[in-house]
Amino acid sequence: MQFTPSHLDELRAVVGEDGVLSSEAARFTYEADALTLDRAMPDVVVLPRSTDEVAAVVRWAHVHGVPVTPRGAGTGLAGGATPERGGIVLSLNRMDRVLHVDPERLFAWVEPGLVNLWLSQQVARHGLYYAPDPASQQVSTVGGNVSTNAGGPHCLKYGVTLNHVLGIVAVLHDGMVVSLGGEAPDSPDFDLASVIVGSEGTLAVVTEICVRLLPKPEAVKTMLFDFTTIEAACQTVSAVIAAGIVPAAMEIMDQHTTRLVEDWLHLGLPLDAGAVLLIEVDGPTVSLAAQVQCIRDEADARGARSTRIARDEAERAAIWRGRKSAFGAYGRSASGFYIMDGVVPRTRLAEALSTVYALCEERGLEAGNVFHAGDGNLHPHVLFDAGDPAAQARALEASHEILRMCIRMGGTISGEHGVGIEKRPMMLELFAPEDLATMERLRAAFDPGGTLNPGKILPGEGGGREAGHPERALGPAQLGGMRVGAGDVEGPWI
Amino acid sequence: MQFTPSHLDELRAVVGEDGVLSSEAARFTYEADALTLDRAMPDVVVLPRSTDEVAAVVRWAHVHGVPVTPRGAGTGLAGGATPERGGIVLSLNRMDRVLHVDPERLFAWVEPGLVNLWLSQQVARHGLYYAPDPASQQVSTVGGNVSTNAGGPHCLKYGVTLNHVLGIVAVLHDGMVVSLGGEAPDSPDFDLASVIVGSEGTLAVVTEICVRLLPKPEAVKTMLFDFTTIEAACQTVSAVIAAGIVPAAMEIMDQHTTRLVEDWLHLGLPLDAGAVLLIEVDGPTVSLAAQVQCIRDEADARGARSTRIARDEAERAAIWRGRKSAFGAYGRSASGFYIMDGVVPRTRLAEALSTVYALCEERGLEAGNVFHAGDGNLHPHVLFDAGDPAAQARALEASHEILRMCIRMGGTISGEHGVGIEKRPMMLELFAPEDLATMERLRAAFDPGGTLNPGKILPGEGGGREAGHPERALGPAQLGGMRVGAGDVEGPWI
Repeated sequence: MQFTPSHLDELRAVVGEDGVLSSEAARFTYEADALTLDRAMPDVVVLPRSTDEVAAVVRWAHVHGVPVTPRGAGTGLAGGATPERGGIVLSLNRMDRVLHVDPERLFAWVEPGLVNLWLSQQVARHGLYYAPDPASQQVSTVGGNVSTNAGGPHCLKYGVTLNHVLGIVAVLHDGMVVSLGGEAPDSPDFDLASVIVGSEGTLAVVTEICVRLLPKPEAVKTMLFDFTTIEAACQTVSAVIAAGIVPAAMEIMDQHTTRLVEDWLHLGLPLDAGAVLLIEVDGPTVSLAAQVQCIRDEADARGARSTRIARDEAERAAIWRGRKSAFGAYGRSASGFYIMDGVVPRTRLAEALSTVYALCEERGLEAGNVFHAGDGNLHPHVLFDAGDPAAQARALEASHEILRMCIRMGGTISGEHGVGIEKRPMMLELFAPEDLATMERLRAAFDPGGTLNPGKILPGEGGGREAGHPERALGPAQLGGMRVGAGDVEGPWI
Repeated sequence: MQFTPSHLDELRAVVGEDGVLSSEAARFTYEADALTLDRAMPDVVVLPRSTDEVAAVVRWAHVHGVPVTPRGAGTGLAGGATPERGGIVLSLNRMDRVLHVDPERLFAWVEPGLVNLWLSQQVARHGLYYAPDPASQQVSTVGGNVSTNAGGPHCLKYGVTLNHVLGIVAVLHDGMVVSLGGEAPDSPDFDLASVIVGSEGTLAVVTEICVRLLPKPEAVKTMLFDFTTIEAACQTVSAVIAAGIVPAAMEIMDQHTTRLVEDWLHLGLPLDAGAVLLIEVDGPTVSLAAQVQCIRDEADARGARSTRIARDEAERAAIWRGRKSAFGAYGRSASGFYIMDGVVPRTRLAEALSTVYALCEERGLEAGNVFHAGDGNLHPHVLFDAGDPAAQARALEASHEILRMCIRMGGTISGEHGVGIEKRPMMLELFAPEDLATMERLRAAFDPGGTLNPGKILPGEGGGREAGHPERALGPAQLGGMRVGAGDVEGPWI
């Protein structure tokens, strides 16, 4: 549809003059999320301030058959917020309030545009926090996290976003407002709130979220171990779980990553370590000493060369800074890289990593690995020279093979980033046609006209690009893909 | 449809001679689940042994337009397994195997007919267990638990069934077999496994379940406190949570219930206590002493008269036996009773209980309360003389008002038993028409012909019985309702 001035006026009547962005300069920002290789210009960007305004905009779009792509902070890595078919980008950033906190019943109602970390900051005075902590939490929004069912380093112990959403108010494709789930831990309706979580805006636009809050753990201990080999680090991860301990986080950085980070930030990381392993435990103070000792014993038994235990919050922050700066460190070192988000069984991590290195090496490429080891959630970074199209093609091929390896090993193609546009073709390899048909049936039940964020998740919505064998269709726009510039980005996005 | 001998032969060809029950005597058992006031005779009972057999039976039913009602152990309290419109009862009890255990990745694939407790017993050799523990766990099946999204005393800390299901293999209305979710903690598909959990067989027949296993806690401490008033017990529950402790269980029995149990089992429960409060904590041994002390302090500060702490497994079992025998004790004391399954905010428990007593008292009825206090999940038992129809009508009215109170207080009408037939009309009071329409849309997407367990959950499927104002339609068949005989039933069903 061609947007006319009178169309824009109709939208302005709903959200106000400053709630409609139509100039090319303003729309440019909304062409892509952090998966910048895939871009599409929206016809208009609309910034509502309430559920009622969202409902009115979605109803307007329904009547005019215009696609609506909801968007949070745009930190997504799979192209879920890219308006592939134009239309309206519905930016929810102005809806950023904490609506209500119930510190006794341990929940809060929030708007989707609320930045993840602000939520924990706002409930801190009650001794509470919101557990899901995607590494993007300083920027990304609760609504965006709901959209991708975001994970984070602490999801090993605490679960992903899905496990912390009790209820949702959402606008359906025709503008109808519904309330799904609720404040009680087990609502007696079909669990539609759960099906909305992770659906990337293809089923409904989420406008209010009831999230579970947790009491802050009394104490935290953060440890950093240094191993000669990455295999020993991986074995320690499995040994700790086998010992009956569920740490709050277990994160590994390989040698390549450790060197890049140290070269940049000078945190005192060991340059000759095969890998470093970060383990954090939390809980009642009295329970931590024994857990720390048990973890040290397991690490020592696997040849840990040194152990650093944070003595205070500053030391803890330094350890985490090293982990969270990996993304920026890659950006400093290579002009282009692809990040994968694959999952393998935790017990096969070492084998998976060795395959990742081999797949890259045989294509003359370097790979760096930093990952949520406790969850088996890999984030291989395949580095390449962005000025060399042949190298980029080889990197893409390697990335594709990495995800295939995850599927073959009994894992999956996304641990937390979502499917979006990026992994749409891979769905054909992961799921049987019957499974995909069930998803399409659900999608059609919610959005028969296909105007809510079309082209995401389902390969059947790829406009035929994935119709044949998926490999034929794979291009930078579909698989992997993000480039960052020089290393001024201490990006917390993985 | 009239079942002919040749129809039965077609079904026997799928599941074998002994897999089809067609005599009236054999079918009689399948007329109802534990909600015995609502009965309907199935035309035939079919007992498949595999996913393929389930698929073939469901496909047959689809072709013939015959309703299919899946059934586990029949311990449900809401009529979810009652074949209201006849047809096939699909009893899944023969599919009771543990298919695969992965002790390192902490999951197991099981069949739906597996008894809940057997699962924990079979994985115990790995130091693991399955956390959701409905009080019926010695009898009820994992598939039945999935169907109602069952809770249990330990769900305060560990979450309900939904939080422990990773993946599902299910048969759709036309016999198609799909695989939803999977072994990874965050599958990238729409979260259809979660929407199947709690859907009471109305969306698909679940034939294989991937459940999360947990390491057994190193230690457990079980305490029993005795208070002068039930208000003090309720305040202690909130105070413990506010102190940052999340016990594994917090259960309250009121004076009436305590007396009935003591009269029967002679466990040494205090006859003059206003209420007893059972609290259990688990975790690393070193962490428990401090938690026990903190809980004792909170209880003492609210006037706890005595504290019993189990010194060994036998004492622990005795404390739990008192709690779990409440159901049977009511059965000994009254010829009829209704059990409600309402939820109120934990912080308003005392207020809710006082309303429950008043609603019963003003109708000349006795009420007993035993409940999952940590979750705010009430189980009021309204006692009546089954030989007095007027008393029964008053009990029904009181029960109805109790659920209305839960809704008014911001709670809900089911904490764990499901909706089934029993609470179908109450859905009209709990949800807005838009919310119900969304549920109907989902139901229609999965089962357009409406042959999978028709008449459950959705008021629109009540055959018009709930079409008008719900109150008009309420009868024993819809609301509450279960009668047990003399007290020989140490029933673990609540």
